[in-house]
Amino acid sequence: MAPRRPSLEALERGLNERDRGALARAITLVESVRCDDQRLSEELLMRVGPRTGRARRLGVSGPPGVGKSTLIEALGAHVIDLGLTVAVLAIDPSSAMIGGSILGDKMRMPRLTADPRAYVRPTPAGGELGGVARKTRDALLLCEAFGVDLVIVETVGVGQSETAVGDMVDTFLLLALGGAGDELQGIKRGIMERVDLVAVNKADGDGLPAARRAARDLMGALRVMRRRFSAWEPGALLVSGQTGHGVPELWSAVVAHRDAIETSGELAQLRRAQAHRALWSDVEHRVLTELRARRDVAERLHELESKVDAGELPASVAARSLLDLFRLPNPPPAQRTEVS
Amino acid sequence: MAPRRPSLEALERGLNERDRGALARAITLVESVRCDDQRLSEELLMRVGPRTGRARRLGVSGPPGVGKSTLIEALGAHVIDLGLTVAVLAIDPSSAMIGGSILGDKMRMPRLTADPRAYVRPTPAGGELGGVARKTRDALLLCEAFGVDLVIVETVGVGQSETAVGDMVDTFLLLALGGAGDELQGIKRGIMERVDLVAVNKADGDGLPAARRAARDLMGALRVMRRRFSAWEPGALLVSGQTGHGVPELWSAVVAHRDAIETSGELAQLRRAQAHRALWSDVEHRVLTELRARRDVAERLHELESKVDAGELPASVAARSLLDLFRLPNPPPAQRTEVS
Repeated sequence: MAPRRPSLEALERGLNERDRGALARAITLVESVRCDDQRLSEELLMRVGPRTGRARRLGVSGPPGVGKSTLIEALGAHVIDLGLTVAVLAIDPSSAMIGGSILGDKMRMPRLTADPRAYVRPTPAGGELGGVARKTRDALLLCEAFGVDLVIVETVGVGQSETAVGDMVDTFLLLALGGAGDELQGIKRGIMERVDLVAVNKADGDGLPAARRAARDLMGALRVMRRRFSAWEPGALLVSGQTGHGVPELWSAVVAHRDAIETSGELAQLRRAQAHRALWSDVEHRVLTELRARRDVAERLHELESKVDAGELPASVAARSLLDLFRLPNPPPAQRTEVS
Repeated sequence: MAPRRPSLEALERGLNERDRGALARAITLVESVRCDDQRLSEELLMRVGPRTGRARRLGVSGPPGVGKSTLIEALGAHVIDLGLTVAVLAIDPSSAMIGGSILGDKMRMPRLTADPRAYVRPTPAGGELGGVARKTRDALLLCEAFGVDLVIVETVGVGQSETAVGDMVDTFLLLALGGAGDELQGIKRGIMERVDLVAVNKADGDGLPAARRAARDLMGALRVMRRRFSAWEPGALLVSGQTGHGVPELWSAVVAHRDAIETSGELAQLRRAQAHRALWSDVEHRVLTELRARRDVAERLHELESKVDAGELPASVAARSLLDLFRLPNPPPAQRTEVS
C-alpha cells in the first residue's frame, strides 16, 4: 500500500505558511517518477508559479576536497545572520551509480540542517542528467514559492552537471584551492568560461600564501575569458569556510553580481534563455522516457539512436522517424503484456 | 506548374557517377521545404548513407573583412593541386533578412567555381538557424556521397551559426587579422574556446609585423583555453590568401589535426556527439515547425513559449503541454480552412 499522498490544497497552503514539512513533501512529489504524481506536481507548479522567480539563485562547483560543504555552511550561516532564509539543493548524476557521492547531505551541513531559517535537501536519487536537472529545477521553484531568499545549487561537477547547474542559476561560483606547483590544478577545463566568481578556499594559516598565488593566477585566466555579462567582470576572492574569513565579502560579491545583471537587463535575458533550454531539454527527456517505456517502440528507438551515433543514418531522417514513433497511439493493454 | 522533379534513382546514379548537376539537384531537394520533397530527400539520404562520413570536414569562421573567401579559394586551389576534390558550403542565417550577406558565393571564388574538381554551393535561403543548419548538414552528407575529399563549411559568425558549424565539422579554423592597438579585436567572445586552428590572414608585405604580434597574442590566449581534444593543442599560423604564403602549412595543420583526433579515437567520439545533438536539434525544429503550421495549435504554442520565457510557467509543465499538442491528431481539412 502506498502512503496516502498529500492533497494539492494542503501542499499549497503549507508552502504559503512556510511549513517545512510541506516543502519537503512537495519536493518529494516533483521527484516522483509515478505518472499520477507527475500530473499532480505539474498542477502544483502551475499554482505556485506566480510566487516563483524571486530568490537569488547561486550555483557552487569545485573539485572534490575543495571544501564545498564547509563553505556553503559558512555562507549560509552568514546569510541567515543577515535575516535572510536559504535552501541548499544539489545535482549529482553519479549518485545513482555509486549510491550517493554527496553522501549524507544533512550530516555535512549540521548548522544549516538544524536552523529553521535554512532548508537542506538531500540530492535526488540519480538517473539521467536530464531527469535529475528537471527535478532540481522544479525543487528550486518550490523553494522560491516557499519564500526562500537564497537558493544554493551545489554540484560535484561530474560530466555535464555543471552545465545543468549553470542553466538554472543567476550566479555561478567556482571554488578552487591554492596548491604547490600548478596553481590551477583540479579545475575542470571549460568551467572557467562559465563562472561569475572564483573563491580560493582554505585561505587560512599556512595555506594563505598558496591561496594568494592561486587567486592571482585565476584572475589572469579570467581576464582572457569571454565575459558572460557586459555588466560584470568576474573576479577571484580569498575565503576560508573553516574560519569564516572572506565569507561576508563573498556574499557581497554574489549580491553585487546579481544586482549588476539585473540592472543591465541581462538577468532577464539569462532567465529567458535558461527557460528556453529547460523547455527543450525537458521535451527531449520526456520523448525519450516515454518511447523507452513502450515495449512496442523501445527497440526501434534504440536502433535509430545507434544508427545515428554510428553515422549510418542522417539525423534529419532519424528525427522524423522518432517523432513518428512518438505519435503512434499507445497500443491497447492486451498487446502490451508479454503473455498474449 | 512545378518543374518535374528528378527521380531518386537518377539522383543516386548521378551522385555515384560524380555528376555535378545531380549533386546540385540533390542539394536543392534537401533544401526544399515541400513536404513531398522532404520525404524524397530523406529516402535519398538513407540510400547514400553508407557512402558518407569519409570526407575531411573543415569549418571556417572569422570577422567580416578578414578575407575568408580569398583564403578558402587559395586553400581549395592548393588541395585541388594535391589531386583531391573539394566542396564549399556556407551557413548564413542572416541571408533571409538582408537578402544574402554572403552575396554571390560563386563570384567570390572564381577559380574554385570554374574547376571541375571543386563544387561551390550558394548559401541556402535563410530561415531559422535550426532549419538552415539541417540543410547544410544534409548537403555535407550529399557532398560526401558524391565523393568529395574535403568539405569546407564557411560561416559569417552571426548569432549561433558558429556553434552550428562547429557541430558538423571535424576541424574548426578561425581566421583573424593583425591590427593596430588591440591585436585581438574583431574576434567574437566565446569563439576561441571552439577553435582547433587560428590563421592570421593578410600576413604579407606591410601587414607582416602586425600579423606576427597577433599570432603571438592568439597563442597566449589559446594556451589558457580548455583543450577540446587531448590529442591536439590548438595553435596560430600566419597565412596570406592573396600571395598563398602559409597555405600549404595551413593544409598540413588541418590534416594533422584530423589525423591526431582520428588516431586518439576522439574523432569518433566527436561525430557521435554531433550526431546526437543534430538529432535532437532536428526534433526541436520539426516539432516547432509542425506546431506553428497548424492553425489549431499555433496560438497555444506561442502562449506556452511566451509564458515559459517570462518565467510564468515551469518548463517541465510546458514541455508536457507542448508534446500533448504535438500528439493531437491533425484536424480534418474542413476545420483547417478559414472559410468554414
